Amino acid sequence: MSLIVQKFGGSSVANAQRVMNVAKIVTDTYKEGNDVIVVVSAQGDTTDDLIEKANEINPKASKREMDMLLTAGEQISISLLAMAIEKLGYPVVSLLGWQAGFNTNKAYGSARIENIKTERLQSELDKKKIIIVAGFQGVNKSDDLTTLGRGGSDTSAVAIAAALHADRCQIFTDVTGVYTADPRKIENAQKLSDITYDEMLELATLGAQVLNNRSVEMAKKYSVELEVLSSLVKEPGTIVREVAKMEKMLIRGVTKDTDVARISVVGMKDIPGNAFKMFSKLAAKKINIDVILQSVGRDGTKDISFTCASSHAAEAVEILEDLFGLEGAVVSSDTSVAKISIVGAGMQSHSGTASKMFGALYEAGINISMISTSEITISVLIEKELADKAVAAVHKAFFG
Amino acid sequence: MSLIVQKFGGSSVANAQRVMNVAKIVTDTYKEGNDVIVVVSAQGDTTDDLIEKANEINPKASKREMDMLLTAGEQISISLLAMAIEKLGYPVVSLLGWQAGFNTNKAYGSARIENIKTERLQSELDKKKIIIVAGFQGVNKSDDLTTLGRGGSDTSAVAIAAALHADRCQIFTDVTGVYTADPRKIENAQKLSDITYDEMLELATLGAQVLNNRSVEMAKKYSVELEVLSSLVKEPGTIVREVAKMEKMLIRGVTKDTDVARISVVGMKDIPGNAFKMFSKLAAKKINIDVILQSVGRDGTKDISFTCASSHAAEAVEILEDLFGLEGAVVSSDTSVAKISIVGAGMQSHSGTASKMFGALYEAGINISMISTSEITISVLIEKELADKAVAAVHKAFFG
Repeated sequence: MSLIVQKFGGSSVANAQRVMNVAKIVTDTYKEGNDVIVVVSAQGDTTDDLIEKANEINPKASKREMDMLLTAGEQISISLLAMAIEKLGYPVVSLLGWQAGFNTNKAYGSARIENIKTERLQSELDKKKIIIVAGFQGVNKSDDLTTLGRGGSDTSAVAIAAALHADRCQIFTDVTGVYTADPRKIENAQKLSDITYDEMLELATLGAQVLNNRSVEMAKKYSVELEVLSSLVKEPGTIVREVAKMEKMLIRGVTKDTDVARISVVGMKDIPGNAFKMFSKLAAKKINIDVILQSVGRDGTKDISFTCASSHAAEAVEILEDLFGLEGAVVSSDTSVAKISIVGAGMQSHSGTASKMFGALYEAGINISMISTSEITISVLIEKELADKAVAAVHKAFFG
Repeated sequence: MSLIVQKFGGSSVANAQRVMNVAKIVTDTYKEGNDVIVVVSAQGDTTDDLIEKANEINPKASKREMDMLLTAGEQISISLLAMAIEKLGYPVVSLLGWQAGFNTNKAYGSARIENIKTERLQSELDKKKIIIVAGFQGVNKSDDLTTLGRGGSDTSAVAIAAALHADRCQIFTDVTGVYTADPRKIENAQKLSDITYDEMLELATLGAQVLNNRSVEMAKKYSVELEVLSSLVKEPGTIVREVAKMEKMLIRGVTKDTDVARISVVGMKDIPGNAFKMFSKLAAKKINIDVILQSVGRDGTKDISFTCASSHAAEAVEILEDLFGLEGAVVSSDTSVAKISIVGAGMQSHSGTASKMFGALYEAGINISMISTSEITISVLIEKELADKAVAAVHKAFFG
């Protein structure tokens, strides 16, 4: 007998029929002799609808009241799923975040889980009940409701799996697993049977929208075995764990990120501390910067370019103009770029990976404007409109 | 400085504009120097919408899960009202039933309040905050959410007023107070400036749909002064308290109840215990019976007629046929009747009240088929289609 935690997102429980479908998956798992804890998000567009209601009344509502409002969303979905499971004739109980023991700090809107008091969960498991837990929410020391921020339901599921030492945490999505590239766009995209936490983190960061990053980090920290699988198609998904099975794959995937801007500062004075000033100021404004390129400019100046999310571009430019405008530097931003990356722990020991990638891009006639590498990734910046072509070319080079 | 509890029903907070209107009323009361605790129901049709969602999935869902589902309704309305008050610039906090200390028994769907732990409420009042409390809900000893049943928000408001010894509990509705008759139908209907608890109870029971009965009983028990007033029209409402001001009114109102059926059992054996059997059996099935008329029948038999809610008529007939069908009694039901009542503590000391009522009906050509009286009411059963005419005639006789 195993303890399985299953997480279903909002689209998986969007209407009565889908709720029944989830109830079927859950009870099938229970019938096989497993203890089952299910974490669900709010139905479909519920969260967005609630945000709209709030904005109609007060777009500057306090985060405390926003959390009070939004947590109602999962309360609706957990009770409906419990009712569906009752209909199938299985013992079930739904629990809100606070009932399931999710104690968080006071950061309304993006609370951190401090601990999970597992007494109630354990006692319901002892009664052989299927437990449905409201994702994305907890309670702070003042007995006020908090939310874990967007994507928080994944984190809720992993946290429960960690706290109760579950045998597996299954994250059900609308895709059947993690692929070497977006299967809707790349014909030969292959599903990975398993992948390491680090690889998954890079893929998530790089735009592979499958798993919430914070939940993968938590899974890594507590060695929770994750499985990404589909709630609609019954087939094994992709398993995320510390040591992936040996496969003859140097790289695990090719991703693109088009929500990226290149910011350039041309003609900064070449004096010590300028780069520090620049990036500490950006960090203070919570602008995450990514690929950085520094080069020597004319007449004792230097040029620095970096990338950030395109939504931060305008603010970054403003900050940099304040800092370096007076000394004559020119700040510009360019959002017509995309970042293409390859990810794979296997590439660490293979020197030819980078040249293989660059070669594929060269043959496709695509110019590279910036490059950055980590132990398990290589990223390049190219023109945005060539992004799909670039992914196809690189994917073909590695996966044929 | 007074402590005022204000209760707003679902239609008062049905949309953003109405929520803002309620926020205005609440903050006006606060600005006058009062402490204010507000109890709100779920918005407009939210509760019905949630019930429909549940029925789509499992019409026989457990009451525990139904309560989990339905309590989300008030969670949405309290947070939205709090946001509206934040927008007006006042300190505010919304609290769910369990946060406000509503401890109930385990009767999901119709829980009784066992006590209100007032610490949190008191500490928020000490911080000079306006408190918005979710009506209709509480928490039981297992930390599970419960609902107080339909109309429960009135009860929540009165319970808070009683627990904190509030100076007044204002129940905001879509009418401006309690009238001598339905003002939409009777031109001369007069608003009562005040009324006793007992009179209010009779008026509510008799169909004056203004206040939930249970809340009036609780208000009477704990001497909570109630005020029924409009959330849309700013004018004093009707005050409900133990001793109403002396007014030269024998009666306080004329009501009609058309949701009534007359059940007749003709030809029962005239032996001791039959009436007891009959009414204890009906009570066991929770069928409330009202006006009772017993008469001697033919050949040593007796006939009993009584009234009950028309929704219970079929079940009552079935029970009575089981009991008395074998001994030859004939059971029938008639839903083409209506009950017209006059209510007023003043009538106790005036002998002419009944004859004045009967005279008015006689002059209007309306036949009376059953009569029942209590200390403060006189009710008659007449043909349903004459109900409005009867109310008008009786109202005219007493109020001109």
